[in-house]
Amino acid sequence: MNRQLILLKRPNGTPAASDIEYRESAIPEPGEGEVLVRNLYFSMDPAIRGWMDDAPNYRPAIPLGTPVHSVTLGRVVASRAEGYKEGDLVSGITAWEDYSISSPEAGLGVMPSDLGIPLSQFLGVLGPTGLTAYFGLLDVGQPDPGETVLVSAAAGSVGSIVGQIAKIQGCRAVGIAGSDEKCRWITEELGFDAAINYKTSASLVEDIQKACPAGVDVYFENVGGEILDAALMCLNVAARIPFCGAISGYNSQVPVPGPYNFWQLVVKRARIEGFLIPDYAERFGEGIAQLAQWMSEGRIHHAEHVVDGFENTLDTFLKLFDGSRHGKLVVRIAED
Amino acid sequence: MNRQLILLKRPNGTPAASDIEYRESAIPEPGEGEVLVRNLYFSMDPAIRGWMDDAPNYRPAIPLGTPVHSVTLGRVVASRAEGYKEGDLVSGITAWEDYSISSPEAGLGVMPSDLGIPLSQFLGVLGPTGLTAYFGLLDVGQPDPGETVLVSAAAGSVGSIVGQIAKIQGCRAVGIAGSDEKCRWITEELGFDAAINYKTSASLVEDIQKACPAGVDVYFENVGGEILDAALMCLNVAARIPFCGAISGYNSQVPVPGPYNFWQLVVKRARIEGFLIPDYAERFGEGIAQLAQWMSEGRIHHAEHVVDGFENTLDTFLKLFDGSRHGKLVVRIAED
Repeated sequence: MNRQLILLKRPNGTPAASDIEYRESAIPEPGEGEVLVRNLYFSMDPAIRGWMDDAPNYRPAIPLGTPVHSVTLGRVVASRAEGYKEGDLVSGITAWEDYSISSPEAGLGVMPSDLGIPLSQFLGVLGPTGLTAYFGLLDVGQPDPGETVLVSAAAGSVGSIVGQIAKIQGCRAVGIAGSDEKCRWITEELGFDAAINYKTSASLVEDIQKACPAGVDVYFENVGGEILDAALMCLNVAARIPFCGAISGYNSQVPVPGPYNFWQLVVKRARIEGFLIPDYAERFGEGIAQLAQWMSEGRIHHAEHVVDGFENTLDTFLKLFDGSRHGKLVVRIAED
Repeated sequence: MNRQLILLKRPNGTPAASDIEYRESAIPEPGEGEVLVRNLYFSMDPAIRGWMDDAPNYRPAIPLGTPVHSVTLGRVVASRAEGYKEGDLVSGITAWEDYSISSPEAGLGVMPSDLGIPLSQFLGVLGPTGLTAYFGLLDVGQPDPGETVLVSAAAGSVGSIVGQIAKIQGCRAVGIAGSDEKCRWITEELGFDAAINYKTSASLVEDIQKACPAGVDVYFENVGGEILDAALMCLNVAARIPFCGAISGYNSQVPVPGPYNFWQLVVKRARIEGFLIPDYAERFGEGIAQLAQWMSEGRIHHAEHVVDGFENTLDTFLKLFDGSRHGKLVVRIAED
């Protein structure tokens, strides 16, 4: 039996229970060149919300009537494709279902399963999340020692790693987050130099200026909206803004206006550069090795929330948008 | 006698006659290390509008009660600074007045006056305008032969040069302009491959897609607002957007919303990069020599409107914003 969460309707704003239907299907058979995967973990990522819309994106919209796409970790249970064998630990974009058909063309990757790493970390700090922080900050942001790195959604799965890598690079790391508890966590546990609670800030621009007395050289953009606008007002000349998503827009049905202060890019000769982590596939090994080393040295900490149970998938996904959690959220749908 | 146009008030939207006061002062005396310049030409640039506001900019706001700043061309009439002598042709940012005090620190540059080039061209195609097109397209935009370059304000002083340099580089050049006449001019006279009249376009996105069947690799951004938003929807992967100004925002008293389609930067891993031409000062010689050569070969044409008379300065400046002219606007305030 294959439990599935089917996209019935394009969500209007925040996804509602009525947009998604639970269905039970037969376990599919892999065709020639395909692999049958037993999904074990679903990665909860804001990007999934974008894939639900029928709008130009970097991947095709999820077709109505099919399971919701998701980055997953699983085991090969039957392989008719070269390079995969039964029992292989694999990760890629499959779907919210117990069993998925995948293939090398779909980007299914075989993970090393002998490193003693908890499986869920392949979806987090040693997976797309950590790699987004690693390549986005180092390759797109290119921070020099002594520069100031500002991060939004700093208690999130990506932002929390970005700030710690910035510290390792010898930068000042400043985070923006949505609660005093999150601010305490990133400064006291993760070593950020300063944190700003945007929900209680009377002036985000002034608070950024105070926390970044030498200006902002790299702003790692996760949020969009007014936080991006405030950051734009605090840039140094030749600042860089790696941009991998804007969570404030994901659930909006009207275009998110702004940034209003876009012209500051000219004033400060700054650069906003979009990036997607699949483009770095050939360098994943380098990134994972470096992140694993930093973790083993105790220089990178991460927070991870593993929710058990397929039936909790949608509720858990929606927690991404209510700001209630910090760190990485995953759902475990089956024991390994 | 020194005729001056004094900024009395910060304009509310489009500058009004009441924001500016005509005043007559004594001709100033240069101090040690300074130069007295007899201004001959005022360059009409949208950027001046930005300098009138008391908002963060790349130069300090024009102080109230002082003459409006402007790129100018003039002659040294008295020098107490090394490197300048009486009669030198000079260009830099001075002000809307007959006589200005300037200095090497203020960026006053000595122009070659023996090339047989009409003086006004030092403010246009062989001055900041042409250099903005040259370095913005080639250095920031980095177009490869065969790529498509889309230009907004394509009949403007910068945009019209951008498209012609794109053609010289072996690119497809597509322009967006505000009248059929301007569209005819850039395609029939300047050699653009296609032109789009944004005022009569039913769908800017569709018209860009039609004119750029292989997508947009470089979008030279002059305008902001809905044109930028439409261009963002038509980018190729790894597209570049050199950004030197956004005229749609200059006269706005409320923040200009957008771009709304900003997230396309992620989808297309594209880059928006602000630049300012003074940063290229050390390479001006290279740019001027190359532009002059292309002009002498007949590969770059330019349009220039020289308005005579100091008293026409403000009216001429406002023409920049009503879309009525193409090419470069300058005011000649005195005979050489």
